[in-house]
Order: sequence, then structure tokens, then C-alpha cells
Amino acid sequence: MIVFLDGRLLPQEHATLSPADRGFTLGDGLFETIKISHGHPLRLDAHLRRLRDGAAILRLPLPAGDAWFADAVAAVLHANHLSQAALRLTVSRGPGPRGLLPPAPCAPTVLITAGPPPPPLSPARVVVSQHVRRNAHSPLARCKTLSSLDTVLARMEAQERGADDALLLNTDGIVAETTIANLFMVDSDGLLATPPLADGALPGIRRAELLRSMVAQERSLTLSDLRSAREVFLTNALSVRPLVAIDDHLIGDGHPGRLSTRLLEELTHE
Amino acid sequence: MIVFLDGRLLPQEHATLSPADRGFTLGDGLFETIKISHGHPLRLDAHLRRLRDGAAILRLPLPAGDAWFADAVAAVLHANHLSQAALRLTVSRGPGPRGLLPPAPCAPTVLITAGPPPPPLSPARVVVSQHVRRNAHSPLARCKTLSSLDTVLARMEAQERGADDALLLNTDGIVAETTIANLFMVDSDGLLATPPLADGALPGIRRAELLRSMVAQERSLTLSDLRSAREVFLTNALSVRPLVAIDDHLIGDGHPGRLSTRLLEELTHE
Repeated sequence: MIVFLDGRLLPQEHATLSPADRGFTLGDGLFETIKISHGHPLRLDAHLRRLRDGAAILRLPLPAGDAWFADAVAAVLHANHLSQAALRLTVSRGPGPRGLLPPAPCAPTVLITAGPPPPPLSPARVVVSQHVRRNAHSPLARCKTLSSLDTVLARMEAQERGADDALLLNTDGIVAETTIANLFMVDSDGLLATPPLADGALPGIRRAELLRSMVAQERSLTLSDLRSAREVFLTNALSVRPLVAIDDHLIGDGHPGRLSTRLLEELTHE
Repeated sequence: MIVFLDGRLLPQEHATLSPADRGFTLGDGLFETIKISHGHPLRLDAHLRRLRDGAAILRLPLPAGDAWFADAVAAVLHANHLSQAALRLTVSRGPGPRGLLPPAPCAPTVLITAGPPPPPLSPARVVVSQHVRRNAHSPLARCKTLSSLDTVLARMEAQERGADDALLLNTDGIVAETTIANLFMVDSDGLLATPPLADGALPGIRRAELLRSMVAQERSLTLSDLRSAREVFLTNALSVRPLVAIDDHLIGDGHPGRLSTRLLEELTHE
């Protein structure tokens, strides 16, 4: 595998980071996961826009413009002859001395890696995380940051409890998202809804696209709302996935719903 | 500077990390900051105990026992001829594939670095962070984790507002700590108090030591409590620091209080 690190393409085993990199010492940085289809990055503009929005919140000066990032992504895909893939673009604030304050100026690290796409996913059974809550009041709730240990713990908790993913409530007890996906539900009236960003939902690229293309509303959802939904599905940059059970409670009849099934079908064409 | 990385001593410029290290990609790991005085690590047992407690919460299998870590710390101090220093011990979950779940088994990364101790600190003026709140409900509130971006942002906010540090409230609006220190106050009755861990205070090593050696109580503190305190001071492994102003409000007469002054005097002997 060839990776892109700080302006150079090189074999992954030759790519090395400084132990003083603030990505490592403090989780100080951002990432994007981008779907690659037929050799092209999907929704790259939207991903780079979100990266820029996150960098503004972190006051992390990105080292280059969108065209440079797009060229770097294309170079990684070309070097690895990748057609279908999952690509990760990581930007950390780069090396720094001990302490929380970044050096001025900082020299951000840019790393791009790619690998095979995830296999087709079975319908998801999730558990509500008993330990981890999203802090919707944090400015970081709107960013995909390198400080992701809370979602790591929730995902491990799901595995231990025999589930595919963990549903995360926010600190007010309202539904936010799962560890890796936004969530949509079709209620008993047939209306499509998804939690608003203010409830701690990450501003997902596919979420925004679905909100533009379908009649759907952003509204606060409780666990009780989800349990009584006709269908629920999860979305992220890589996939759409029906959600068929929360803890021991089946959603609808416990099978993927009509809308989830249609979206999954559309996904095979993207 | 000689650092310790995965069992070897080597010059910092030759020490390199894999870009797949989960410390970098996910902030998945822990650290301790340890004061070195007269060539010896202070309170090393307590630091290693806290590291172990954190590793249990993260389900991160530490690669060795306390004696191994103590030997590694001693080796770094010896190699660098350090007498007075600040040492950082970092343990990440090591390299992993894409995604939140760790590989099984994982191969944790152990990094030990050391540098000069911080210079003597002037009395602190802090601001209340307007953006970052401690999530006291998270199991991670009890750990010093590599996912520290929220405290990075709060510290940058303090700098922009001309302050030395940021005071962090928890999501319920109760005082927790600052970005790098626990907090104690002497109230108008002369009683010493510090926020309980349940309010989002990190289980600081010096905090625990002061709670054992002085008549002090753990109790929930509001900003109003702090503003009307006789004196307030901050503690961490490296130092004790009087706090003389919160936003534009002076604490007491705006000068270090009697207890802070005594503790600072004691600090010169440790």
C-alpha cells in the first residue's frame, strides 16, 4: 500500500510520524472517510468543506487548498490502482513541544491512506451505550476529530454485548447518532426524521444529501420514538444500513424497511 | 534528547511511529506527566496505579508490570542526565486497521520522553471556557487520555482571551477543574474544598495527596463559590499555583493566599 504523507507518496512501511506529533500526543486533528467508486472520490468537495469547517473550529491552518488535497487523493488512488475503496484523509496539527498550546507557526501533518471498501453489511442490531454519551454542547460535536476514544469505547461495548454498533444518546438523554453513522427513522405516520445537529449528530455528508433529496425533517428523537418507528436506518459516507433492533427490541417487524431497501439498492449504483 | 520507544532507548529524531498507530488515528491511549526531582520520579507508584486504572477502563492491556515501567523511566533519566525534569509516559493501543475496533491481540506503543521542568509560574488568571465543558458522565473523565482536543481548544481560548488557563465547568454548569490542574478553594469560613470526581475532576495525584494530608472536603463548587473564596489554588503533578482572578473578578485581594503561599514554599523542597 502506498500512502501520502506530508507531500510525498511512499510505501506504508516507510511512512513514519514524529512521536511529538500532536495527533498522537493530544488527539489534535481531524479526519475524513471518503468512499471511492470506479476510481473516483465521491462527494470530495463536501468532505473538504467539512474538513475546512472543522479546521476553523480547531483554529488549525490547513497547509493547502482544495485542489492540492484533490490531487493528493488522486495520487494515492492512482499509485494503488484502487477502483473501489475507503480512503482516509487525516490532518493533525503536527509536532509540538510538551503542553497544550500549539507552536506558532505549526506544521500540520497530512496523511492519506486507502484500503478495500467494507464488505456489504447485514442489517444492524445496536445497543444503547450505557457508558458513553455525546456532548452536544461541545464545538467538537460538529467535527470528525482524532480525539475519538469515546466512540472507540462505545464500539467495544457494543462488541462485548454482541451488537453491531452502539447507539449514542447525548448528555440530555436524546438520540444523537451511532459511533460511526447518522440515523434516520420513518415514524408511524410515514414521516422521515433525523436528529438535528444541536442534539449531537455529526454533520454527515450523506445525511445532508438525504435531507436535500428527500422530504425529511430534523427533529429531536427519543429512544421511545425509535422503538415505535416503522423503520430506522444508518448512514455514513461509505454506506446505508438498515437498523432492525435496539437492545432486545425489534424495529417494525425486525426486517429492513421499504425505504432502507430502496436506498440500499440505489447504493449499489453509486 | 534520548527517548524510550517500545523497549528501546534512541535519539528523539530516530524515534518514529506508525501512521496506523491508534494513538494518532483515534486518540486511543493514555498518558502520565511525572515530576522528576533530584533524578527521581516523584509519586511514580501513584502515577502507575492511575495508568493501570485508566487502562482497565479502556480495556487496554498494558504490556508490562510496574517494575518494567520504573526501569524504563530510570533509563530515560539516566540517558539524558536529567535531575530536574518533566517526564511524559504515553501508552497507546498501538497500530490497527481502519475502524474503531482494536485488533486482537493489540500491540500497545510505550513512549517515554522528558524535558526541562516548567519555569516557576506566576499566580494564575483564568477565564471560564465559553465553549468547552467537561463531560462528568463519561468514564473518560477519570482518565488522562490521548483524546485531549477539548482541553487543547480551551487552553487556546484562554490564550486568546489573555489568560493563563481556562476554568472548565461540567455539562451541568458545576466547577470541574482547569485544562491542566485540579482546583482547591478556601471558603469564607476558612474551610478547604475541592470538586469531587463525580463533578468531572480528574483524579489528580497531588489532589489525592492533599486530601490525605490536609483537612479538606470534596464538595460541588459553583462559580459563585469560587468568586467569594478567600483563596483558590491549582494543583497538578508538576506544580501548585495560586489562582488570583477568574474572568475580571479578583479572588480575595487578588494576591496569593496564605495556604497557597505555604504550599508553594513546600514545593521548593520536593
